[in-house]
Order: sequence, then C-alpha cells, then structure tokens
Amino acid sequence: MIRAGIYGATGYTGLELVKLLQRHPAAEIAFVTSQSQASKRLSDVFPGAPALPLVVGEDASLDEVDVVFLCLPHAAAAETALVALSAGARVIDLSADFRLRDAATYEQWYAHTHPAPDLLDEAVYGLTEVNRACLPGARLVANPGCYPTSVLLALRPLLLSDIAISGPIIADSASGVSGAGRGLSLTTHFVEVADNYSPYKIGRAHRHLPEMEQAVGWWREAAPAIIFSPHLLPVPRGILSTIYVNLAEEVVEAELRALYTAAYDGEPFVDVLPAGELASLAHVTHTNRCAIALTLTGRTLILTSAIDNLIKGAAGQAVQNMNVMFGHPETLGLL
Amino acid sequence: MIRAGIYGATGYTGLELVKLLQRHPAAEIAFVTSQSQASKRLSDVFPGAPALPLVVGEDASLDEVDVVFLCLPHAAAAETALVALSAGARVIDLSADFRLRDAATYEQWYAHTHPAPDLLDEAVYGLTEVNRACLPGARLVANPGCYPTSVLLALRPLLLSDIAISGPIIADSASGVSGAGRGLSLTTHFVEVADNYSPYKIGRAHRHLPEMEQAVGWWREAAPAIIFSPHLLPVPRGILSTIYVNLAEEVVEAELRALYTAAYDGEPFVDVLPAGELASLAHVTHTNRCAIALTLTGRTLILTSAIDNLIKGAAGQAVQNMNVMFGHPETLGLL
Amino acid sequence: MIRAGIYGATGYTGLELVKLLQRHPAAEIAFVTSQSQASKRLSDVFPGAPALPLVVGEDASLDEVDVVFLCLPHAAAAETALVALSAGARVIDLSADFRLRDAATYEQWYAHTHPAPDLLDEAVYGLTEVNRACLPGARLVANPGCYPTSVLLALRPLLLSDIAISGPIIADSASGVSGAGRGLSLTTHFVEVADNYSPYKIGRAHRHLPEMEQAVGWWREAAPAIIFSPHLLPVPRGILSTIYVNLAEEVVEAELRALYTAAYDGEPFVDVLPAGELASLAHVTHTNRCAIALTLTGRTLILTSAIDNLIKGAAGQAVQNMNVMFGHPETLGLL
Amino acid sequence: MIRAGIYGATGYTGLELVKLLQRHPAAEIAFVTSQSQASKRLSDVFPGAPALPLVVGEDASLDEVDVVFLCLPHAAAAETALVALSAGARVIDLSADFRLRDAATYEQWYAHTHPAPDLLDEAVYGLTEVNRACLPGARLVANPGCYPTSVLLALRPLLLSDIAISGPIIADSASGVSGAGRGLSLTTHFVEVADNYSPYKIGRAHRHLPEMEQAVGWWREAAPAIIFSPHLLPVPRGILSTIYVNLAEEVVEAELRALYTAAYDGEPFVDVLPAGELASLAHVTHTNRCAIALTLTGRTLILTSAIDNLIKGAAGQAVQNMNVMFGHPETLGLL
Repeated sequence: MIRAGIYGATGYTGLELVKLLQRHPAAEIAFVTSQSQASKRLSDVFPGAPALPLVVGEDASLDEVDVVFLCLPHAAAAETALVALSAGARVIDLSADFRLRDAATYEQWYAHTHPAPDLLDEAVYGLTEVNRACLPGARLVANPGCYPTSVLLALRPLLLSDIAISGPIIADSASGVSGAGRGLSLTTHFVEVADNYSPYKIGRAHRHLPEMEQAVGWWREAAPAIIFSPHLLPVPRGILSTIYVNLAEEVVEAELRALYTAAYDGEPFVDVLPAGELASLAHVTHTNRCAIALTLTGRTLILTSAIDNLIKGAAGQAVQNMNVMFGHPETLGLL
Repeated sequence: MIRAGIYGATGYTGLELVKLLQRHPAAEIAFVTSQSQASKRLSDVFPGAPALPLVVGEDASLDEVDVVFLCLPHAAAAETALVALSAGARVIDLSADFRLRDAATYEQWYAHTHPAPDLLDEAVYGLTEVNRACLPGARLVANPGCYPTSVLLALRPLLLSDIAISGPIIADSASGVSGAGRGLSLTTHFVEVADNYSPYKIGRAHRHLPEMEQAVGWWREAAPAIIFSPHLLPVPRGILSTIYVNLAEEVVEAELRALYTAAYDGEPFVDVLPAGELASLAHVTHTNRCAIALTLTGRTLILTSAIDNLIKGAAGQAVQNMNVMFGHPETLGLL
Repeated sequence: MIRAGIYGATGYTGLELVKLLQRHPAAEIAFVTSQSQASKRLSDVFPGAPALPLVVGEDASLDEVDVVFLCLPHAAAAETALVALSAGARVIDLSADFRLRDAATYEQWYAHTHPAPDLLDEAVYGLTEVNRACLPGARLVANPGCYPTSVLLALRPLLLSDIAISGPIIADSASGVSGAGRGLSLTTHFVEVADNYSPYKIGRAHRHLPEMEQAVGWWREAAPAIIFSPHLLPVPRGILSTIYVNLAEEVVEAELRALYTAAYDGEPFVDVLPAGELASLAHVTHTNRCAIALTLTGRTLILTSAIDNLIKGAAGQAVQNMNVMFGHPETLGLL
Repeated sequence: MIRAGIYGATGYTGLELVKLLQRHPAAEIAFVTSQSQASKRLSDVFPGAPALPLVVGEDASLDEVDVVFLCLPHAAAAETALVALSAGARVIDLSADFRLRDAATYEQWYAHTHPAPDLLDEAVYGLTEVNRACLPGARLVANPGCYPTSVLLALRPLLLSDIAISGPIIADSASGVSGAGRGLSLTTHFVEVADNYSPYKIGRAHRHLPEMEQAVGWWREAAPAIIFSPHLLPVPRGILSTIYVNLAEEVVEAELRALYTAAYDGEPFVDVLPAGELASLAHVTHTNRCAIALTLTGRTLILTSAIDNLIKGAAGQAVQNMNVMFGHPETLGLL
C-alpha cells in the first residue's frame, strides 16, 4: 500500500483527492492537514466527507508516508515540499510552485520569491500523457494547472507536427466555480454567479498563461503566443476550452484527425471525439478524462477540449501521476 | 414627487429598491447610503446598476426627503429611524426592528436591547393587504419579513374564518439565496449551494417564527402554534411555502375556495390560483405578486404560496406601502 | 463474475447502472437494451458514456446472464420479468411493477392490468436495509421507488418503536429533475425548471404514496396515513424529504436518537447525523448513502432524509441488492 | 395609443413582448395568437402571465392594429407579413425572414424559398442604434438576431474606423437556453444543460453568421470573415460574446476607447464600460442594454459584449424600434 499524506485537505481539490484515495485499491491516507480547521474532522468541514481527523501541517508525521500531496497556497507548498523531501517522502505538488521552470518568471507572476529554486530543475511537469516516462524516478512532481491541462492536451499533437501556424493562439476557456477555491469572496457568492457568465483576467493576465506558453515553447520553436480568456461559468465543476488556431497553409481535416488519433491512441484518459461531435462538460465531469474535438473551418482550426477541473485538472491527474510513480497501472482507482 | 432616501443600498434589497424607485413615476431617489462602500458609486458595487453616489448614513441630508427606506441590519435600523423621524421624514423599515410589537420578544430573538421601544406601538405592520387602512397616516411602517409575507397571506383568510384547526400549522418554506444577504459566508458560496438543497433552523428556531405567530394571534384566539422549516434553494430569488393545516372538521374545498376568492377579490397583487393549479416561483419572480393555491386532502389543507422574496417579500411591498402612505394608486410603478 | 443485462439503458437510471456495473469488481455487463435507440451505441446517446452496443430487448441473449436489471416503463417491466425468469435469470426490477403486493392497488394507481400478478407474492421489496435476509434466495426483487426510499428509511425506526403517533405523517419532498426521466416534456425544459421550485401531485396523488403506506402498514398496526408533497427542484439529482410526525406523547430527543442510532448501527449506507446537523443533498449526491437527521420540537418530530435519487434511490440500491443476492459484500463497488 | 398585435405569443420572445407592451404607457395589446394553443389563455401556457385569450393567426383582426410583431418561425413570418402589410398594419418581424437582403443567401441558409422576396429591399434592418433614421417611415422592420445584436454593436465602431484588421474576426458567444426556444428537445432538457457547457454549430455553420457578415460588409469594404462559435450556457437568458480582432497595426487603447465612447455617446441602451471592467450577463439581464468592454493585448483587441437575448436581443429591441417608428421617445417603457 502507498501511504499518502494530504496537506491542505479542506479545499475542493483536497476533498476530491481524499475521495479518490479512499477508493484507491493500492493507497491509504496517512494524514490530512488543515491550518485553519485543525482539530475538526473532515466531515465537520464537508457534509458527507469521511471523518478523518485534521491536523496542522507541523503535526503531520512524515515518517509514515511514501508520498505527500500538496493542496496548499503557492509558496507554502514549496516550503512544505522542502520538508517532505528531506524526510524522504515523494511529493506531488498541486500548487503552482514547481510548474514554471524559471524562478524569475515565477516571481514575476506570483509576486513572491521562490522558496525552493534549487528544486525547479528536478521537478517533473506532471502532465501525465506527456511526461509519463520521467515519473517512475521522480521525487517531485509539479501537477499542472487546470486550464493548462485542458489547453495543452488539445494543442500538443498540432504543435509537435510540422503544420505551420500563423498569429497567436486564442484559448477561450470557461471554468466551473470550484476552480476559484473555497475561500470567501463576492466573486463566488451564489447570487453573483448564478444566471451569470463573466470573463476575468482576459488577454495575457492570468497566471496560467506562462505555464501554457512554457509548454508550447517545449514543443515548438518560435512558439506562437497565447491569448487566454478565462470565464466564470455557473456550474460547480468542469472546464471547456475553445481554442482557435490559424493554420498558415491549407490542411485537410482528415490529416489533422489522423494526427490526433495517432497521438492519443491507447491513452486511457484522452478521448478524441469522432467528426461532427464537439467536447462539452457533460463528456467529462466526475471523470479523469479529457475530451478533445477538432473542427476545421477554412484555415482556422477550432479545438474544443473539456476536463473536470477537480479531477483531470487537479486531484485525478495527481493520482494518475502517483500510479505511474509507484509502478501501478495508470488507471488504478480512476475508472 | 416623493423624495426618497435609501439607507443600506448595497445589499440585494437595497438594489431592488433602487431599481423600483428609478422607474417609479411619482418618486425620485434623493440619496443612497452605505457604511462600507461610501465614496463609490452604486454601479461600482453592482454591475449594471445606476451610478448613484454612495454616502455614509451620517452624511445623508434628511431635509430633502419625504420618506426613507431602511435596508439596514437590525438595531442600526431602529437607531436611524429615530433620527429620520425627528427630522420629519416618514420611515419604511425593511429590517426586523419594528415588526414585533413586544420589546421583550424582540430582545429574546434578536439578542439586542431594542433601541426605540417607544416607537413599537406606533409602527404599522406593513403587510399592505392587511393594514392598508392604517398606512395613510403612518409615520413608521415595519415592512414584513419575506417568509412571513408568504405564509401570512396564505393563512389569513382561513384564520379569520370560523373553520376550526387542530394541532400546529406546518410551514415548509424554500427560499432563494438572496434571502441570505450579500455578506460573505460559506453558506452562500456557489459550490455549496448549487446542486444542493438544505434545511436550516427548522422547527421553532428561525427569527421569522415569532413574527408569524404574532399575526396569527391577531387573527385568531387560542392561535395554533407554527412549525416553520426554512430551506435554502439553489436559485437567486423567490420563496415557496407549502403549508399544512389540519382542519378539525370536514370542510368542502369549494367553501375554502370561496373564502379565499372573496378575501382577495380585487387585490392587485394576490392571485388565488384556479383549482388544480399549484403555486410555484415561476408565477411570481420579478413581480410584486403573491400566488396562493389550495389543495384539500381529507382534513388536511395544503396551501402553496409563492412570492419573490426581494419584491413582495421586501422592496416591492415597501413601495406598495409608500404608494398607499402618499395617496398614490397602490400599483403605481409596480406593474 | 456476475453477468448482468440491463433492459432500458438509455434513461438516467440505466446510465447510472452502467457506470456502477462497469466499475464493479465482480460484475460485467452482458448487454444493454433500448427499444428506440437500438443499433446505436450508448456513447451516441450519452456524451462520455461507454460505447456499448444497444440492442432491442427481444435480441438480448438471456442465456449469458445471471441477473437482469429492468429500467423499463411499468407493465413492460413485468412482461420482461416473466421472460427473464423463465430463461433462468434473476431479476432486479427498477420499475413499480412488483413494489405493491396487491394487484388491485397496482391497477388503481397505474391504470393497467398487472401483467404478472402471480409473481407478486414472490417478489422481495428491495429496501436492502429492511429485507436483506430475503435477498440471497430471491429470484425477483422489486427495487423501491426513490421517494419511498428516502421516506421509509427515515420513518422505520420510529414506526417499529412503541412511540405513539397522532394524525397523518407529512412528507414534504424535493427531487432533482433526473427523477422525471429523460423523456421530453415542458416540465423538464431548462427554462421552466431553472430559477423555479414547484410542487406537483401533492396530498395523496403521487404513485409513490401507496408504496410508502404499504411499508408503513407492515411496520405498525393502525398505521398513520401519509400526506406526501413532492416538489421539483432545479438540480439534476438528489432527494430531500422533510418529514413531520406528531408524537402522541412527550418523548425526549435522546431517546429518539438512541432508537435511530441503534437501528442503523453498522449500516454502511445509512448515516444518522449528529445532533444539530440536518440532512442535505450535499451529504449524499454521487453516493449510495442515505443521511437522516432528527429534530424534535415540542411533540413534533422533524426528520430530514437525503439520498441521491439515481443511486440509493435507484441504480445504487439495485447493485446493493445484487451484491446481497449473489453473496458478495454489500458495499462491493459502491464505496 | 399604439394598438399592437403579437403573432406567436407562446414562445419566450412572445411572452417577453407581452410583458413589455403591458407596461408600455403608449401601447396596448390588441391580440395575441398561437396556432397550437388557441382557445387557451396566455396564463394557461405560462404561470403568472396575463390572462389574454389566444386566437389562431387567421382569426386575428388586423383592422384594429397599428403594428404587428411576428414571433413566428421563418417563412411563416414572411407570409404573415404580406397579409398584415396589405391590411395596412406596420410590421416588426422578429424572425429571420427579412434580415438577409439577398434572397439567395436566405434560401441557402434557411433551406426555404423566400415567401416575399419583393419586400426585402424595403425592410429596414432594425439594429436601432444603426438604422434609427430609417425607422419613422418604415412599414417593415427586420428585428436583428440575438447573437448578431451582441456582436455587431461591439464591432461597429471599429469597423467604421480606419483601423486595419488582419485575418478573420472570432466571435466566441455563450447564450442562455431561452435562445433555443420553448420547443421540446433533448438539447434543452434540464438534466442535459445544468452543470454543462457545450459548443454547437461552431465555425461557419450557424444561421446568424451570414447576418453578421452582411452588416460587416456594409461597414467595411473587403470585410473580414467571421468565425462564430456559439455555446449553450446553463442560464435561462443572456448572451455574452467574447470577440477577438487582430489589428494590423499598433493602436493605443485610449484611441480605441475614444472611438467607442464617441460612437455610443448619448445612446440610452449601450454602455461602454470603463477601463478595467469586463462585460458580463449580470450587467444586462432583464434590461434592454448592451454592455461593451474593450481589452487590448498587443495587437489583439478583445471585445466583450453582453445583452439579454430576450430583450435587447429580441422583444426589447422590437419595442425600441416601435417607439422610433411611432415617434415616441426611444426609451419609453424600456427603462
């Protein structure tokens, strides 16, 4: 059994992770932490959750665990990673701390000196489908952001091909409210969200933009810029990204489709939808899957890509990474 | 023109009142106050709202106004009422401060010494359909609570009749989230409310209970007790009360229907629905109406009663009261 | 492995059953049927569903199966049950056909001659917690209705006690829209349901009433009548029942609580909530659990009881029954 | 008083029109028609609606009316327009029949021979802010589509400027479900829409595309193509369009902002939002307003534009047009 600790279990991602690990046949939860709600049980914080005792992070016993999941605010995550790694635990970080390989970029976007810049080189970017091979030996995995997961899985086959692209890529994304966290804010008040749909931090203003552009840069030289427009959707969970790419030359749709089918052939969690179908939240909520559809209109390729932000966009992909790190079948506990 | 001031304009009730008064042909808004957001405009606080400047209550000029509406927390409302009345303004209080005629009951339920007990006798309980005759001369009107409005309009014809009732009356009510206010609380977080339905303060625990029982006591000696079970509904606005009354004797439905039809004949804002129809939020949201339906099953009378909590349950009824107080047609600006 | 066939897989209950059986470690799906969508795959009908081929019921091979689940309209279910039983399969019927033991009552409520009255005596009413002992030998199980599951689990410990009750029991229930099925009707149009809350068939008019009263009659002589008021809730899934019982004598809450705790001690899927907590949909959606809370106010006991209508109220309880029928741990595949 | 008839009053647009005309101080409703629900009253069809008698279109008396509103399916609208015009009534058509000036384009997109091609030249495209001057003399007004209203008001100032554009314009739009009408379809089933977000007819496949491109062609030579991606949003009403335009040259945001401020200065129903704000449904639902915001990122201009699809996108703009046609203040009955 993999013994797992969860730091920061009282957010939506932490709760989802608890649920996934509780039904996972090869993992068990050693501890769950909360700074603000310690001494309560998880069931006091979430109706219907398991009655696990919450402890403050400092009281969690790292001796008992093989892996820790960090569902902490940025900076706090990196600090905890340092502690956990030196205690011999492997770390899957669901915060942003190890996603960007460049400390200066991190500090520009997160307005914080990186607490552990020496670990950046070692951290594996945990988009499982992409970096699967690096996971078995990894000590530290940076679980990708939710928006980047939906956008990058959709773009990767195209970017790795030799089809030329012109101009910026536009990623118009819509996310359910759990993506905004459980903290209190007028932004997430039911009356403000229900019956509403609202863009925020559009253009080049959201912190997930540099994460996307970093990966795009890995996959293609002279990488296109991304225009990223997130919107808040009146649903609890799910992300749909509608992505517009101007192709520099005529391409037939069948060629594109073949590219994607080949890229994701055999992938248990990526569904390339048949021609004529478009991705929607209904394809993926409450699953670890990513549904991707291609629509070609003249030279504009429209990709629609859907995930559950809490599962494939966070806790599910973290468990998927854990499975690979520990030599288990990648789908264990996730179907 | 009636010159009106609104204290506490940055809650949902305040905003609704602003909208109603802006389209009212015989009223104009003299000022809107906010303690926390003063110096902003209302449009900074609510997208799409009019750009009225917000001032702190202390800076509002009472000289210019004929009437003030108090959308303030309890106790603060009574204190402001004292100031406004002595400046010569008439007062429509949307808080709970003058709803209960007995200061001791108030203090028991609101855990606060009443700031103006001497005004309690004078205050008119502003359930317009009931106390219409007292409004033209009123200086101070206590606008009813939202739940009591839905329950009391449904019960009154029965209670004023000589049909005997046995046992307690059960009022099972469901309210949209605007009823919980715009303050921040996990209770109103979108993810907690959406896809959920949850009872709270059921039995004899909610502050609207004594308000209901007070009116029931006016209308019938040896008044039945009320069991009141509010629930939070994943909608922005609206209240539906499903009310169960055990009749002590056999009554035919036609007699009950005649009772209600007669009671509300000519009432512009109370709709007694035809046999076979039941009240729902769709009948009333975004209107000042109350829809009431009767269903008789054996000796159990089930009343369903729906209002928009922000309109007939608050701002709309306040304007209805203002219309009567100032000698205008009761429906002015409300259709 | 239990080989299972599903008749009527293209409704919401059928889909839920497919999902549960696909992740069940001891069951496999032999066939899924649909009369209207045969020759399609299930994934053509539901985005993201498994790509199982749909066949018409007549083409399903009963030789290959140990058990069939009937997610069919009433009458069609009983007819299929006859065929399946004679082919040697065990039957779990999710329709109403075998819930009422009395054919005349069935015919009164369902306006249809019962197609298989001779089987009524044999059918086990599959409220698992109640009839667990009868399941291992059962050939035919009548899976309970969704509303009755939520109401009966809440009432049973009280009814089996010697605490006297006076007057009718009132069950005020709210259900998510999946309870209304996937057929097309203005009642389930998004615009009619969203922002709405509406009662329907209240009093003694809903088909689940005789099912509830039948069980109440098993548990108590001179059984109280039930007043049952269902409401349509703007959520996809979940049922909350708020149940009012007038106790004929003074009882202390601790005694009631002890009764319920004892009754459900060790039950994996029934949670008696601690004092001060109330049941809500959030406790149970996407699980096979029933959450029950007790609130005593004077002599009125208010029970709040929540289930997921598609799981504990349908497909989940069916799998729970299957587990017991086939000698597996009751929770297998359901946690 | 303007005497108005409404053809097709039992859809969402028809109902909204009834509500607007009922509170309009200078208009009265002469008749409301329905082919399928004739002999009922409107209140039988919509809970809470006025109890107007529904007649079949053939029985509507055109003698009594000054203007008719056509909320009919395409083709049926044009046929009724012919009848109404020859009876001397003015016509505001809310269908697509007279929006496209070219009969061949109409026939290509609507798969129907145009029933009244001779009227196409005469019809005024009723985007009020644009064609206000043509309305007083108009006999026949083609009320714009909902998506085109949101997109065209946002694009027009830019297109009329001399700022060069490169590549296609991308309009990524999200609409509430009332835009899909009240007809029955799995697409609008509550359970399919709630918690979902789904693109449909994206690229160059939706019938509102030629309407948008026609107007773009009026405003700019060598007009850019439009890529239009509608999405279905789990809300009853509202459209948000997020529009991406690649500018061919560097422009400073202040210049763009000045362009828009000037274009819409004094417009009662178009709000150009201040820098830093983005348009959302909350700005506009239940109003006749269009909120437009500008965000410049490098050479990409992102316009966010929000309307209520039933009001500014349909019934409200129709009344706005009526006001101008009959010489009333444009805002009459619409504030």
